[in-house]
Parts: sequence; C-alpha cells; structure tokens
Amino acid sequence: MTLDDFYAIIPAGGVGTRLWPLSRKARPKFLFDLLGQGQTMIQGTFDRLAGICGADHIVVSTGAQHVDAVRTQLEDLGSDAIFAEPVPRDSTAAIALATAVLARRHGDQIVVGSFAADHVIRDNDAFAMSVRQAVAAARAGYVATIGIAASRPSTAFGYIHQGRSLAQDVPDAADARLVTEFVEKPDAATAQAYLATGEYRWNAGMFVMRAGVVLDCLKQYRPNLYASVMAIAQAWDRGPQERQVAMDEHWAGIEKIAFDYAVAEPLSVAGGVAVVPGGFGWDDIGDFNSVAALLPSSSQSNIKILGDSDLVSYLDSAGDVVVPAAGRTVALLGVSDMVVVDTPDALLIAPRARSQEVKDMVSKLSEDGQESIL
Amino acid sequence: MTLDDFYAIIPAGGVGTRLWPLSRKARPKFLFDLLGQGQTMIQGTFDRLAGICGADHIVVSTGAQHVDAVRTQLEDLGSDAIFAEPVPRDSTAAIALATAVLARRHGDQIVVGSFAADHVIRDNDAFAMSVRQAVAAARAGYVATIGIAASRPSTAFGYIHQGRSLAQDVPDAADARLVTEFVEKPDAATAQAYLATGEYRWNAGMFVMRAGVVLDCLKQYRPNLYASVMAIAQAWDRGPQERQVAMDEHWAGIEKIAFDYAVAEPLSVAGGVAVVPGGFGWDDIGDFNSVAALLPSSSQSNIKILGDSDLVSYLDSAGDVVVPAAGRTVALLGVSDMVVVDTPDALLIAPRARSQEVKDMVSKLSEDGQESIL
Repeated sequence: MTLDDFYAIIPAGGVGTRLWPLSRKARPKFLFDLLGQGQTMIQGTFDRLAGICGADHIVVSTGAQHVDAVRTQLEDLGSDAIFAEPVPRDSTAAIALATAVLARRHGDQIVVGSFAADHVIRDNDAFAMSVRQAVAAARAGYVATIGIAASRPSTAFGYIHQGRSLAQDVPDAADARLVTEFVEKPDAATAQAYLATGEYRWNAGMFVMRAGVVLDCLKQYRPNLYASVMAIAQAWDRGPQERQVAMDEHWAGIEKIAFDYAVAEPLSVAGGVAVVPGGFGWDDIGDFNSVAALLPSSSQSNIKILGDSDLVSYLDSAGDVVVPAAGRTVALLGVSDMVVVDTPDALLIAPRARSQEVKDMVSKLSEDGQESIL
Repeated sequence: MTLDDFYAIIPAGGVGTRLWPLSRKARPKFLFDLLGQGQTMIQGTFDRLAGICGADHIVVSTGAQHVDAVRTQLEDLGSDAIFAEPVPRDSTAAIALATAVLARRHGDQIVVGSFAADHVIRDNDAFAMSVRQAVAAARAGYVATIGIAASRPSTAFGYIHQGRSLAQDVPDAADARLVTEFVEKPDAATAQAYLATGEYRWNAGMFVMRAGVVLDCLKQYRPNLYASVMAIAQAWDRGPQERQVAMDEHWAGIEKIAFDYAVAEPLSVAGGVAVVPGGFGWDDIGDFNSVAALLPSSSQSNIKILGDSDLVSYLDSAGDVVVPAAGRTVALLGVSDMVVVDTPDALLIAPRARSQEVKDMVSKLSEDGQESIL
C-alpha cells in the first residue's frame, strides 16, 4: 500500500498559554524543544510526517507572524507550502483552506490528514501504522480519526466512543471501528467509567479524509465557511496579488469553529466517521505537569529539568519541574512538587498541581499591564 | 552630660550567608539596603552613631576587599578611620585594634562602643538614650552592654541574665543592672522560661567601655592577642609602611575569638559587666524571615516585597517575601509563605520557615562548584 495520494496538513496555532513564560504569544509552544530532545515540536511533527508521505507532501498552516520562524525551523518545507493566517480562524478554516488548495493542485481524490504541530508522539513507527489504517479508511470514504489508547482517566482530553468494527468494509484498516460519539472532557468519575468500559479513546484531534469528502461535508454543514474558503482557494495559486485580494476579502469574516464541532461530530451522527487505534504514546503537552511527565528524572529526587541541569542546585527538594532558561543558577531549598520557569524577562513559580491555572496567571499579568512579557 | 570622650567602632564583617543570593562574599549584607529605606545597613548605623558622637568620632573595621565600598557609602567617614583587615580575625581582634589605636590617639580614658554594621534599630532616640546610660556605666569602670527587651522567646539570639541594680553606683545610668550571666542561644522551652522571668534580655553584641578597662581585660585574659594588637597599634600611625610591616607580622597570627567569649563572659563572672536596657526595636536581620518581619506588607495578601513591587504579580498567594532584584517580572501562582530572591545570576526559592537553612543551601552550592555566585 503506497501513500502517494496522501498529504499532511500541520496546523501550527495555539500559543500554549499554560506554558507561559516559556511559551509566548510571539513565540508559541510549537517553536520550542519542550522535551529537550534536540528538535522543536514542529520539527518533530514535520520529520515524523515526512517519514510517512515525504516532505513535499506536507503543508503548514500558521499565523502570519510565525511564518519566518517556521521556515527557519523547517528547511525542507516546500516554498509554497505555508498557509499564513493574518488572524486566527480556528481549525476548520485552517484545514479547509489547505485541503481546498491541495485539491485544486492534486485533485479531490487525494487524502489529507491534519496533525497538530505541538503534540508529542513517542513511537513514530506505531504512529505511521495508525496513519496507514486511517488513510485506508479515508479512501473508503470515511473521515478517519486516530483514537489514542487511554492510559489513565484523564479529564484534560475529549473522548471518542467507538462502535462496531469496520474491518469488513475496509480491508486495509483491520482495526478501524465506527465512531458512535465524540464526548467532551469528562469529570473524574465519568472518565473513570469510560476507562472501565474499554470502548473510549482519547481524541487527539487527528483527522484523515479524502479532500472531496471533507469539502462536501463543509458545503453541507457550514456553507458560508465553505464558500469563503473556496473563493480564497480559487485565487491562491494565481499569484501573490490575487491571493492577497481574496484573503483580504474573505478570511477575517470566516466563522471561528473547531473541526470537531464543524465536521467530526455531525458526521459521526450520520455514521461517517471511523476511528483507528493509536497506541504510540501521545500527549498534547498542555501544561508544565505534562512536560514533567515526559521528561526523564534527574536523580532520585525526581526533579525534572528542561535545559542545562548544571544550573539547578537543590537541597531537600523533590518532584519539581525546573526550566532554567535564563542561564542563571536556580537554587531550591525545601521546595517540592513545584514548577519553576526561569526566563530572561519573567519568572514563574507555581505548584505542579496548579499547572492548568497558569492560564489564569497570564490573565492576571495582562490585567496588571504586563502585556509585553505575555 | 556630654559625649566628647565617646568613640564608636563599627565592625563591618559577616557575609550574611543566610541572605544569599542578595548578600555575597564580595558584597556582604551591611552594604545593602535590606529594608528598602533608601540607605544601606552601614549607612544607617553610621548616621545613627554620628547623631550621638559626631562623624569624626566613628571608625570602621572591615575586610580589606570592602574598604572601597565602605568609603563610597560613608562620605563623612574620616580619612584614617578605617581598619582594613587582610583576613578576618573575629570581633575581639577588630575591637581591640581599633580601641588600642584610638587610645593612643586620644588617651585611654576615652570610652569606646562597638556596634555591628548590619543591625536594624527602629528608634534612634531611644537608642541614643541607651548609649548614654552605657557610657555612664563605662565611665564608672564597667564594660557595659545594651540588653534588648525580648519581645518573643527567640532561639536565634543569646541572652543576658540581669542582676542587681547599679543605680546607686552609677547615678547617670538609672536603669543599669549588673550582668549575672551571658547565656547561649537557648532551645524554645528555655527561651520561653527566660521570657517568663522578665530578667533576661537579648544580647545584641553591643559593648561600651573605657579603652583602658578593656585593654587591661585583654592583657589579663588574652595576653597573646593583646601583645599582637598593641604591637600593631604602636606602628599604626607611624606611616603606611610601618603599619603594613606590623600587620604582616602580627595580624594573621591573632587568635580568632568573639568578644563575648574573650571579654564579656569572663568579666561578668568577676562582676565587671553592666547592662542597660534597650527598648528601641532591634533585629540582626539574620535571614529572609527577619527581612520579611521588618518590611511593610503589600496589600492584604501579606506579601513582603523588597524592591520594585510592580515587578511582582501574584494570584492566590500569601505571606511570601519576594526580592525582585533582577528587574524581571516574578509571577507567583498558588505560592504561599515562600522566600523568592531573584538576582541577575542566581535565584533562590525556599519556604520562609527554612530561612535559617539558606546557609546549608550555600554550602551545597559550594559543593556543586558554584563558588562564582557565592
């Protein structure tokens, strides 16, 4: 089974507010090496996908202000493979425009897959196998998603309820199941119940589908969004001036809606969404607690250090996650289970258990007139 | 009662290790404005004493490496009023040398008083009144100390056990009492018991005495130290070369011993030490908890900020002491009762309750090869 007809779209949006002060509006989390692996999140995503479909089958959709950084980080990205958004319009617009342009270039029988720029995946081979099954399901007409094996009753992710097997309908996707329902982030008890059934998987927002199928869905479910996107797509490859005119006319007015709500959920009700299992170790690194979980421990004190561990000295401390990103020595005395993020112009200290609330801290800083460091 | 015969000695030693990373070996705590009052500790000490005996009756004893900083901070200090120590030899040597030189210059009937450069005193008028009583007791032949009214059962200070009144013996020191005993830092139960009797006061290490009296004591109790100091004192004002030769020959070999042990304790046994009360609000600012206790609160969250409070943003945090000395924003989320000291090259985080252990953190940093930031 070849993947010549498969194209990958990398939506690179999302500041990663909960990762402030490492992540900033001007420098979102996908531009960082959040796991200290020697490559940034978007580089890791690009390389993983390039191994599946080749670098020339990858496009990136990102904010206009990040285009230069993305080009610098992704040397092998094609010259006309960036979709620059003057203002963010959420994932449906991003995926729809890239899909429509790719369909005009390569035909609407191609399969497109959307994979966020800032997720971590442990096992690239297992990921590639999941993508192959998803492509097979997409060729059969489904919008296919990859459902992550839920390793704990997380309340931070949405879930996918899987139904009957599609193995008979899609020979090349032996593990594909029909999606019964997408469900929102549950409370702890519900998450525990989901885990107990074995029929729920994490929704990582990965979607693989024929270009024609998804464009038809949009035409039906979101006709205004569809019309705007098609108008831009028509002008896209007719030179920079026509592209600019079309973007100026249509982009800002496009509805902001997540792809899950615009396409995946309504289509699942109609029985059009398949899920293939993903057992490759996944996290969206939403906060510093996630970062900590993915970093190796430094010694028996279980202190996780993202950066130069020589900069961190500690005494009677354990379980901290420390980011010494300012080149200064960080000395911890009797400090346990805390997040310490040290950057040249801002320092954050918080308990690990409150990592999600870093978003509120950022709001507070905005109220305090500290926009310049956000 | 005039104080024309009174001279003040300011021993400016002691790094203030528990105040790291604000205080450093190269820049000890007496050179800092630890309370944000617009003057450094040594400037406050100098001004307080100048108000009592005049700037020309003050000398400073400090490490040779701090002479330039001291001169810069104390513009009114006399040109030959600094005793530069090539290596520290503790308080007895410092007080003895200054006393011996002053006695040669002004006669051994003068009264000298020793007051540390890094203590905080709230009420300068009350302090001056205590000093006047101490001078009166000194003129009567006592080594006089100022006993601080113990406001809590502190285990961080030594105590002075006061005995019978000396009001009859020394008319100008109505509140003077004989010292029965000096006692070491007690445990909590003992400190509580001391407080209950009302007969114990904190030992702030302030000593006032006739030059001849203290030199006689030293001759008797510490003859070797006395001989070395007298040899240096004899050469001191005979030009820089003779001074240097004498220092090179004698200083490094002088016994390191605190004045309390060398003079005050043995003399108290002989009934030669008087104590006058000090009710002026005193602290030796030994650690960041002390700093916090002396700083005004910032808002109802009781967060104490030493520096620019605009640099500190906090959410759901209380009782912290923050030193934003690097010009960066410090963001605290859910952080309570912690010490956060942010300097350009080192950051310290510790619970306030462990402020005393900052000394151990400094030892750990030394072990970790971080001498350059200590």
